[in-house]
Amino acid sequence: MKFISEIEKTDKDQKKKTKVYLDSLVKPIGSLGRLEEYAVKLSGITGKLVNELGKKAIVVFGADNGVWDEGITPVPQSVTATQMINMVKGVAGVSVLAKQADVDTIVINIGVKNELQFDGIINAVLMNGTDNMALGPAMSKETAEKAISYGFDMAGKLKAEGYKLLGAGEMGICNTATSSAMLCAFSGKSPEEIAGMGAGIDQEHYEKKVSTIEKALKINNPNPDDAIDVLSKVGGLDIAGMAGLFLGGAYHKIPVVIDGYISMVAALTAYKLNPLVKEYIFASHKSTERGYMSVCEEIGLIPAFELEMRLGEGSGCPFMFYALEASQRIVRGMVTFEQGNVDDSDYIDIRDLKEEG
Amino acid sequence: MKFISEIEKTDKDQKKKTKVYLDSLVKPIGSLGRLEEYAVKLSGITGKLVNELGKKAIVVFGADNGVWDEGITPVPQSVTATQMINMVKGVAGVSVLAKQADVDTIVINIGVKNELQFDGIINAVLMNGTDNMALGPAMSKETAEKAISYGFDMAGKLKAEGYKLLGAGEMGICNTATSSAMLCAFSGKSPEEIAGMGAGIDQEHYEKKVSTIEKALKINNPNPDDAIDVLSKVGGLDIAGMAGLFLGGAYHKIPVVIDGYISMVAALTAYKLNPLVKEYIFASHKSTERGYMSVCEEIGLIPAFELEMRLGEGSGCPFMFYALEASQRIVRGMVTFEQGNVDDSDYIDIRDLKEEG
Repeated sequence: MKFISEIEKTDKDQKKKTKVYLDSLVKPIGSLGRLEEYAVKLSGITGKLVNELGKKAIVVFGADNGVWDEGITPVPQSVTATQMINMVKGVAGVSVLAKQADVDTIVINIGVKNELQFDGIINAVLMNGTDNMALGPAMSKETAEKAISYGFDMAGKLKAEGYKLLGAGEMGICNTATSSAMLCAFSGKSPEEIAGMGAGIDQEHYEKKVSTIEKALKINNPNPDDAIDVLSKVGGLDIAGMAGLFLGGAYHKIPVVIDGYISMVAALTAYKLNPLVKEYIFASHKSTERGYMSVCEEIGLIPAFELEMRLGEGSGCPFMFYALEASQRIVRGMVTFEQGNVDDSDYIDIRDLKEEG
Repeated sequence: MKFISEIEKTDKDQKKKTKVYLDSLVKPIGSLGRLEEYAVKLSGITGKLVNELGKKAIVVFGADNGVWDEGITPVPQSVTATQMINMVKGVAGVSVLAKQADVDTIVINIGVKNELQFDGIINAVLMNGTDNMALGPAMSKETAEKAISYGFDMAGKLKAEGYKLLGAGEMGICNTATSSAMLCAFSGKSPEEIAGMGAGIDQEHYEKKVSTIEKALKINNPNPDDAIDVLSKVGGLDIAGMAGLFLGGAYHKIPVVIDGYISMVAALTAYKLNPLVKEYIFASHKSTERGYMSVCEEIGLIPAFELEMRLGEGSGCPFMFYALEASQRIVRGMVTFEQGNVDDSDYIDIRDLKEEG
């Protein structure tokens, strides 16, 4: 995975130029907050002030997790596949929200347990579900690297097909457990601190989930300084695929939006492999899953939307796509003080002021 | 203003039915968070499960404030009118963000100081700027009521024209000062607690702003239990117009979105006149202006977007329009467990669970 070290910094000069341009528009400096930050960050990625975001896709990696065998959830494992089918049918949460934003939903089977043949689902199975992390490594390092490479190549392929903006989503029963195990390994925090109620499992299942994560960490003893070690031992194929997508986005200079908790853990994995990834990725909404803000802190990203969502699937990405589009509307549509043909003496002062209205 | 007491409750039965329907869709219960809340709230307003939000407008009330004479800001008063012109030209912040969401921007001159004739700006001047609240009441109670009635009628007129969703914006130099004075009067909090730096005025201007608000409150002694008294003495025509729009939305059963700080103070004013208004209005983004969360607490509303914006103008409304549309996509586009032709035994459990992904 030589490509990981070949990721480049974003364009610092263009970012400065974009900032100067934004400060020349008819508004108090910085008054459009994060929209201005997004415009600057995007321009660093592309090297251009104006960015047509055009074609967009949410890439959903679906996979099963062997840890399901531990009985940490009452949800049947078959739901992973069923929901992937609902996604390509266009009737799942992510599908209807993606459609609103005119975004394609690309569904990839990177490791569902049972045979899954359905028109529209891309077959890229690396394992028929991972092994049970409570008994040993979820997958080999080689398999984890293959999954990362697959996600990486997908980013390049989609860029070549004309996509300008990607989002990373997932489907996989028990993937809040694998994500939490990974976050515990990376952060040194305990499963009690990190693992969520999945926002609603009962106390019995929650306790089982926590003890299972503890067991998985103990038996595997992942090395926090080796992201591939953490990923392969207590992660999942969905997380690996998304981590690859983030790395690929950074390598191919195409922005990638993070969805919720699991997607954010994948982003952290990519960030651990190369911190430059951070310059190419965008947090979207604040998931209500307990560990979400802890992952954000590890990377240093801040979500913009507090919609109390916890569906996953990539369903939070379209909101961020909308905000990134908004950042470009500002760049393209607002006039500068000069272009507005207004007396500079009327305006010059408010450039440095922030009165609302 | 008899209409204020004629506002009706929203449709409780429909809200219950909508909740039941949302819980039948292929996702863990409540996992789409606030989007589900929005769908329920909208259905209460219209009495229908499915709502086509179609035609939308942001209504911007522009007015000048006599308190400008106190020297609390270096921004020239003429900027109010200039920015209103930039709005109808389509080159201001609110204009480009409204255009993205296919939303009309309606600009109303309800009290700019100097003569303002510009094609596209609706002339509804009630005063040529308010009087200086630091010396006495900003306007008469009669004028405040006229401004409210104007906003109220505008909501009815727009509903008759086929608009399904409105937003309330403003333009008026010094209107964070008037808003803060009103919030101090309503909440009993001090100007130091409430008044913001406008997010960037210098310390000298800030101190002047605080002492001016203190002076205005002392000289006018507004009655916190009489919203019209507070509004007329230390408010503004822009705030009065927006308050009327919120009341009109509630009366005519058309949802109205709140923008930032000043818009939220107007919503509080409407809420004080009739608390039922709360069922018809939606918070959008969390303004960075200091007093913003205090107003939210007074009404009991929570914003969904943290974009660190502080432009005003109605510029935060389009994000909420997008989220409200998203709530309808869910209602219209997602399938129920039954419609999905999936084995109930696969799904029945996850209805009560909230595993992400």
